[in-house]
Amino acid sequence: MSKGSITVHHAQGVLRLSCETGTPLAPLLRDAGLLALPCGRGQCGKCLIYADTPPTPEERTLLGPARLDRGLRLACHTLTRDGLEVTVPHEGELRVLTSFAGTTYDREPLVRRQPLAVPPGTLEDQRDDVRRLLAAAGADRHCLTLEQLVGLPALLRSGQPLDGLLQDGCLIGVRPQDHSLALIVDIGTTTVAALLLDVDEGRILSSLGEQNAQAPYGADVISRIQQEMAWEAGGGRGDNPLQAAICRQINAMLARLLAEAGREDVDFLSLTGNTTMLHLLCGLPGEHISRAPFIPVTLEAMRLPARRLGIDSQAECFLLPGISAYIGADIVASLLAADAHHPQPPFLLIDLGTNAETVLCAGGELLACSAAAGPCFEGATLSCGMAGQDGAIDSVTAHATEGLAVTTIGHVPARGLCGSGVLDALALLLDAGLVDETGHLEADDSPLGRRVRGNALHLAEGVFLTQRDIREVQLAKAAVRAGVEILLREANLSRQDIQCLYLAGGFGSAMRPRSAVRIGLVPREWEERVRVLGNAASFGALRYVTEKDAPRAARALIRRTRYIELSAHSGFADAYVEHMIFPLS
Amino acid sequence: MSKGSITVHHAQGVLRLSCETGTPLAPLLRDAGLLALPCGRGQCGKCLIYADTPPTPEERTLLGPARLDRGLRLACHTLTRDGLEVTVPHEGELRVLTSFAGTTYDREPLVRRQPLAVPPGTLEDQRDDVRRLLAAAGADRHCLTLEQLVGLPALLRSGQPLDGLLQDGCLIGVRPQDHSLALIVDIGTTTVAALLLDVDEGRILSSLGEQNAQAPYGADVISRIQQEMAWEAGGGRGDNPLQAAICRQINAMLARLLAEAGREDVDFLSLTGNTTMLHLLCGLPGEHISRAPFIPVTLEAMRLPARRLGIDSQAECFLLPGISAYIGADIVASLLAADAHHPQPPFLLIDLGTNAETVLCAGGELLACSAAAGPCFEGATLSCGMAGQDGAIDSVTAHATEGLAVTTIGHVPARGLCGSGVLDALALLLDAGLVDETGHLEADDSPLGRRVRGNALHLAEGVFLTQRDIREVQLAKAAVRAGVEILLREANLSRQDIQCLYLAGGFGSAMRPRSAVRIGLVPREWEERVRVLGNAASFGALRYVTEKDAPRAARALIRRTRYIELSAHSGFADAYVEHMIFPLS
Repeated sequence: MSKGSITVHHAQGVLRLSCETGTPLAPLLRDAGLLALPCGRGQCGKCLIYADTPPTPEERTLLGPARLDRGLRLACHTLTRDGLEVTVPHEGELRVLTSFAGTTYDREPLVRRQPLAVPPGTLEDQRDDVRRLLAAAGADRHCLTLEQLVGLPALLRSGQPLDGLLQDGCLIGVRPQDHSLALIVDIGTTTVAALLLDVDEGRILSSLGEQNAQAPYGADVISRIQQEMAWEAGGGRGDNPLQAAICRQINAMLARLLAEAGREDVDFLSLTGNTTMLHLLCGLPGEHISRAPFIPVTLEAMRLPARRLGIDSQAECFLLPGISAYIGADIVASLLAADAHHPQPPFLLIDLGTNAETVLCAGGELLACSAAAGPCFEGATLSCGMAGQDGAIDSVTAHATEGLAVTTIGHVPARGLCGSGVLDALALLLDAGLVDETGHLEADDSPLGRRVRGNALHLAEGVFLTQRDIREVQLAKAAVRAGVEILLREANLSRQDIQCLYLAGGFGSAMRPRSAVRIGLVPREWEERVRVLGNAASFGALRYVTEKDAPRAARALIRRTRYIELSAHSGFADAYVEHMIFPLS
Repeated sequence: MSKGSITVHHAQGVLRLSCETGTPLAPLLRDAGLLALPCGRGQCGKCLIYADTPPTPEERTLLGPARLDRGLRLACHTLTRDGLEVTVPHEGELRVLTSFAGTTYDREPLVRRQPLAVPPGTLEDQRDDVRRLLAAAGADRHCLTLEQLVGLPALLRSGQPLDGLLQDGCLIGVRPQDHSLALIVDIGTTTVAALLLDVDEGRILSSLGEQNAQAPYGADVISRIQQEMAWEAGGGRGDNPLQAAICRQINAMLARLLAEAGREDVDFLSLTGNTTMLHLLCGLPGEHISRAPFIPVTLEAMRLPARRLGIDSQAECFLLPGISAYIGADIVASLLAADAHHPQPPFLLIDLGTNAETVLCAGGELLACSAAAGPCFEGATLSCGMAGQDGAIDSVTAHATEGLAVTTIGHVPARGLCGSGVLDALALLLDAGLVDETGHLEADDSPLGRRVRGNALHLAEGVFLTQRDIREVQLAKAAVRAGVEILLREANLSRQDIQCLYLAGGFGSAMRPRSAVRIGLVPREWEERVRVLGNAASFGALRYVTEKDAPRAARALIRRTRYIELSAHSGFADAYVEHMIFPLS
């Protein structure tokens, strides 16, 4: 090895990086923030770059001749050499759902503002600042942090009109008078959504969705935890890189939303996410989440100063409580968004991602499970799978002469397939009989059948769905359906008893129920009962801090939930095998 | 100015310091931790060094010919030059009272240990670590910090027997099984006392007393606050130097006590001190304490993780509550030590230091005031005044032929006078009629009278008490007595009604009541009613965390205390002038 330098062309410009020659290129690009490494193991074929290097055998297998000819290579299989020039493809903006079905909510926020008139101290009234403040706020106690106390004397003597921030009769902050703002964040494994809420007006001022900045450390929660454990095992020097990544991202999102609103800070933050994401945010070790018996450090609701999490705000953070290692605070939030805390007929809620978190709610009792679907619905493991970004095929329909027609996000040339496109394509193949109930793919002479070549359906230039991809989807839908059936069985309910199927999350919102039913992901009985919740976790996190009884309701939901560990359930394997088959029609 | 270097000989060795030549030497020595600058203004004559430099006019005035001849100079009047060699005199160990009159206390500590048996997680019991822990501890909630939660999984899986730390049914820590230890710290302006307590056995394992490490920033609370304000005004870069100093000191004391005990950490800390010292420890701005109307940021009891204060411990700190800017948590602690929370006849408690904090307690009601005595009793402003260190004259008695006989701390040659010696010397002069009731000093032909030369009583080689010193004591005792009289008047009590005079603090413990009465510091009626409490603040801080009802008792005492601001009291000036006179006999 010797010293050298490489040149990287990327969306924002050109970067020159020094390196040891002969070492893998991928970590270098990741550390420069230029590339995500979904699998981190050189197997997923996602770390695409353009480079003028001889393809390795793995690249030949993973990319195929068409991509290789276009100069595409995999960063994880490319070694550095002095003078190497590579180009990182522009991914486009990530489309993250920040809309949600719920539009109204009560306005009795967890933290409310109250104008304060704090009299100055005099020789006749020598009460300390805190006591004069509490008296003015009509509060009997406070939870001001040392940092807030440090700034208090100057603030009280600044002459500007002040508001007290109160939670449950406890003073938690003092601010210049203004509207109350809250930041709502849903930290997903794949995406992070943030909303800025004007609490007084009950209006969302603006929202942002971004790919989770931890993505370079792996596509799924297990890879992330392994990266954290590796850092820990290496002595844990410096900041925990995963914690630092999400923290920097939230800070950047908060700063951007505040700048747009022309404000300095929010009054409080509501944070939700799956159990692993909240562990990583808090710096809690995820090790025991990642392996049986799957024990989190804590699932309780937390309230702590934003600064303690490294978030640049004087405000308090409310972290929603979770149910288990794999039924997290995001699902609790989704349940709030689905009004699970109010009486309603039996329903099922599914958040379809790498795991299909599934909750059955009937007669006030809840049953929950988490089925490992793998990241195929999120585009991470399919040959041409990708997230819902510009260039992703998001719908596929029949076409008389061409066999099929596609639409893409952003109406730009197709670059890959996202989850809803995969379902459509597979449903089309099943309808046409080109895929049979066992999942076997075959060509025929129809316009669609002629698009099946080399064991893959060709959807667009360089974008295809392979036999292997179909197997992945088949395994994923089997896992999801097996989970659903186990819950029904445990609740002693039939599919007909379920009056509503709430779908939470981006994929659930984008997929066409007809296609989901056609491939057997959703039972036929429920096709008309599907209700899309959109970004349910964000809306639930919003309700958690703006509706008076939401925290109590969340606690009650959790208490009434029985979590079923599928890996330990005697009936799971049978149900899994049974649902491997695609429906005949 | 040009660059140069100086050589400093000190107790631990020799140090070479680079400097700009022609700049004052004192800050250089202070920053090297070699010298305290009591006044910080070049007027107190305490920053003694040995140096071969021509004396300045100020040095001639402040030091006198005998000291100048011995090579003594003042660091604050010495300018650096290349090659300068100076010697910093060895001060000896500081004698700090760590004993106290109270020897027994109830043992129901604020934080108690309880053995834990936490079952491991299984697929059948997937409760998170915190829930299994709480169930094992029989606690319904916890206040574990994020830092504690981070370490929890490893601790629970370490296999070693564990104890839970519980406070009021709340789990606040988890530790390897052992005896319960607590650190008790009293942060005085002059001295810091620390005790290591075996809570289970109710035994003090060891104790330490040191000069407050903030001493280089000024002898009194006002100078300290001004230094803090100067740092703040300079942009507040880096750590707050006063906070860092006391924090480093507590850490060093804790480490030393733990090392002696062979332990890793304490279970909890009880911290007391005057209002300014606790503000500085917490980094709370003291600005408004230092000037009328004397408003602290907060006086409430605090409970916060030691780490938040920069203290190297996993434990929780309990900070005692205070009464006002100048009647701090140390006085509340002293009141607990004096059993003020239990019924007793009317009594007075005085902590004699730079301020004489005085509390009158009668019929369950308390009146408090703080009289500015100046630091003369602590030796800071008298010509030859010094703290209670080796070489301090601590008693002066009559001697037939020599006029007087002295004893010194450490039985070494006299270097100066500490408070109790000053009182004895002045009482002797009053007895002999060499000081009249107006405070005027005159020589006569008696053996004692012949020791009065050049307007000063010569006590030993280079140690004297000047007319100016006597005036200082006169002003101080007038302030103390005026405060006492105002309290009596406000309580509508006579001196005869007071059944006990509790003296708290080092000076109060060392002085001879007879001398205090002779100079009029203590009324004649109370000579037989004096009870010395020793380090009452430490003992009270110990009771605060080891007796079940002490925190509630402290709150009740504070609620029932009326603080009288002497500077705003109409009768104070008259009382002050009246008590300027020394008693006739």
